[in-house]
Amino acid sequence: MTKKDKIYKSALHEHEGITPPKILSTNAAEHIKLKRRKQPTVDALVTGITKGNITDLSRAITLIESTNPKHTQKAQNVITKCLPHANNATRIGITGVPGVGKSTFIEAFGAYLTNLGKKVAVLAVDPSSSLSKGSILGDKTRMDDLVKDKNAFIRPSPSGNSLGGVARKTRETIILCEAAGFDTIIIETVGVGQSETAVHSMVDFFLLLKLAGAGDELQGIKRGIIEMADAIVINKADGDNLTAAKSAKVEFNRALHLYPKKASLWSPKVTLCSALKHHGIEDVWQLIEAYLKTTTENGYFNKNRNNQNKFWLQQTIEDRLKRDFYASSKIKAELKAQIELVEAGKTTPFAAAEYLLSL
Amino acid sequence: MTKKDKIYKSALHEHEGITPPKILSTNAAEHIKLKRRKQPTVDALVTGITKGNITDLSRAITLIESTNPKHTQKAQNVITKCLPHANNATRIGITGVPGVGKSTFIEAFGAYLTNLGKKVAVLAVDPSSSLSKGSILGDKTRMDDLVKDKNAFIRPSPSGNSLGGVARKTRETIILCEAAGFDTIIIETVGVGQSETAVHSMVDFFLLLKLAGAGDELQGIKRGIIEMADAIVINKADGDNLTAAKSAKVEFNRALHLYPKKASLWSPKVTLCSALKHHGIEDVWQLIEAYLKTTTENGYFNKNRNNQNKFWLQQTIEDRLKRDFYASSKIKAELKAQIELVEAGKTTPFAAAEYLLSL
Repeated sequence: MTKKDKIYKSALHEHEGITPPKILSTNAAEHIKLKRRKQPTVDALVTGITKGNITDLSRAITLIESTNPKHTQKAQNVITKCLPHANNATRIGITGVPGVGKSTFIEAFGAYLTNLGKKVAVLAVDPSSSLSKGSILGDKTRMDDLVKDKNAFIRPSPSGNSLGGVARKTRETIILCEAAGFDTIIIETVGVGQSETAVHSMVDFFLLLKLAGAGDELQGIKRGIIEMADAIVINKADGDNLTAAKSAKVEFNRALHLYPKKASLWSPKVTLCSALKHHGIEDVWQLIEAYLKTTTENGYFNKNRNNQNKFWLQQTIEDRLKRDFYASSKIKAELKAQIELVEAGKTTPFAAAEYLLSL
Repeated sequence: MTKKDKIYKSALHEHEGITPPKILSTNAAEHIKLKRRKQPTVDALVTGITKGNITDLSRAITLIESTNPKHTQKAQNVITKCLPHANNATRIGITGVPGVGKSTFIEAFGAYLTNLGKKVAVLAVDPSSSLSKGSILGDKTRMDDLVKDKNAFIRPSPSGNSLGGVARKTRETIILCEAAGFDTIIIETVGVGQSETAVHSMVDFFLLLKLAGAGDELQGIKRGIIEMADAIVINKADGDNLTAAKSAKVEFNRALHLYPKKASLWSPKVTLCSALKHHGIEDVWQLIEAYLKTTTENGYFNKNRNNQNKFWLQQTIEDRLKRDFYASSKIKAELKAQIELVEAGKTTPFAAAEYLLSL
């Protein structure tokens, strides 16, 4: 278990009011929990969630995350009944490489928002725990204060090997959090594989955290991250770092000008902050408010949410079609043989594909 | 019809020895051609192709490109019988933005190769003629000399709306060209959408043509083109341009160092040329020969071809699964309704997808 996992985990258990058996894996522990307690009905969960009951919210999310088909079905029923109460929060995606200070930033930003009277849910999309063995290990900071804040709800990334599965569970969790009255949803992710694209496809505003002179600009350009950002926030802009941060701001502004205008008609902004010293946090929120005003007025906000829905609809269909095809026992039996025929130059990849599709 | 189309078209008709009716579309004209003439059998075509008969080669490619299922089936039979004679050419992909001088370069490079005694086939992957209305219009040059060279064969991009379809036809055409004795296959593409990725997945060596100071470096990085390149050739390195070209070479070499080592263990090279003045062409071929030596010795060459085959097998399967799903009348009828339910907040994209998949 990574340090970051522990932060989220302690938040989780605080909400559910239990301590998990230490030896068991998360899934096993959760199955036992679900069995042991008398399970509330779908309607009871929905009533609890819409009243803002955090225990019911946590239980329903655990159902979403379960691999037991019965739980999945129950989760779907809860989600459907929560839908009329959802869709009314601001969804903010935050990304940045390990060490950029995401936890510290979210802690400071979250506290700022709850002080404004907002209810903040912090979720994470991190399929890396299984794929690349915890790329967010580097983070030393914690979200101690936010964990104790009763207007904040922190939930670790659902586990899973496929980004699609993890992203889907998070999308569904957003709905439940919104139904529970959280008006600001922060979704954290790390710069691993396609997870940023997935998060970008489920938020209204996408924020890229950077450090001055970290030399990962090329990475950001290559993976299309800068292109997705609505704001670049240069963190740790304090002390000796301040001068470097200011020139990084100029550089990023110049780089942003090279990109074509966004469909949102919003020009991405670069701003400085020191999450540790709580400097510049207000500026970030003002940026987001300006973005919301612009995109609500020009209609992009709703159009984007509709497009995101269509994207996930399509994505789910295509993932499932592939999964079902390759999982079929007929295909499993023949695929290897066809690949061998292709490698031996006895058939073409196209003819092999046609053959497999005809089975 | 773009100027480039005309170049290829005149090459095509020269080989087939006919003038097409001017008013008809390519497809209609080809269907009529196929009907009018007594069609050779599969075996006759294969015999002709393996003897290097260009008319038979052209006819078989026309079958590959046809939308008539009978022709497609016949083409598959020809391809299967040609397979044992294929797989023995060097496949070179060439890309570059319009105006970089691709035609001039290929003309000079092709002539250099046929002078070495090689047989050169030039193919193109350009789905842009239908998608983005001919992005290679800008090219003013022609391949006049290469068209007349009896050791060169030039074939225009197959038409089609989908990159997948165009790429597949080109992959199959490579097999026929190889069976016909062409030992060097050049596949040209333009910097449009994903066509470079498709070409990269069907060649042994990928060459990026650039101009000094064209300011499209960011584009190259963003779209991952520089990452795919085995060589960057800076064209028009002559006269007043020479100094700029030399410093561009330094810049590109520096940029290439930022990328991780390639699976081929080949370090991409930057070289200068003036296709117009036939300078630096030999250097490019020597680079390719060095690449072939390295990758044949370390086993990457064959591994790469096998991976490419697996890629196309998988790609074809996934394209077809999607196509068949969305083409089904049940899905067509229900998809729109489900999207409306999602937009109205009455269901989630995931539940809608499950419903559609259950039909």
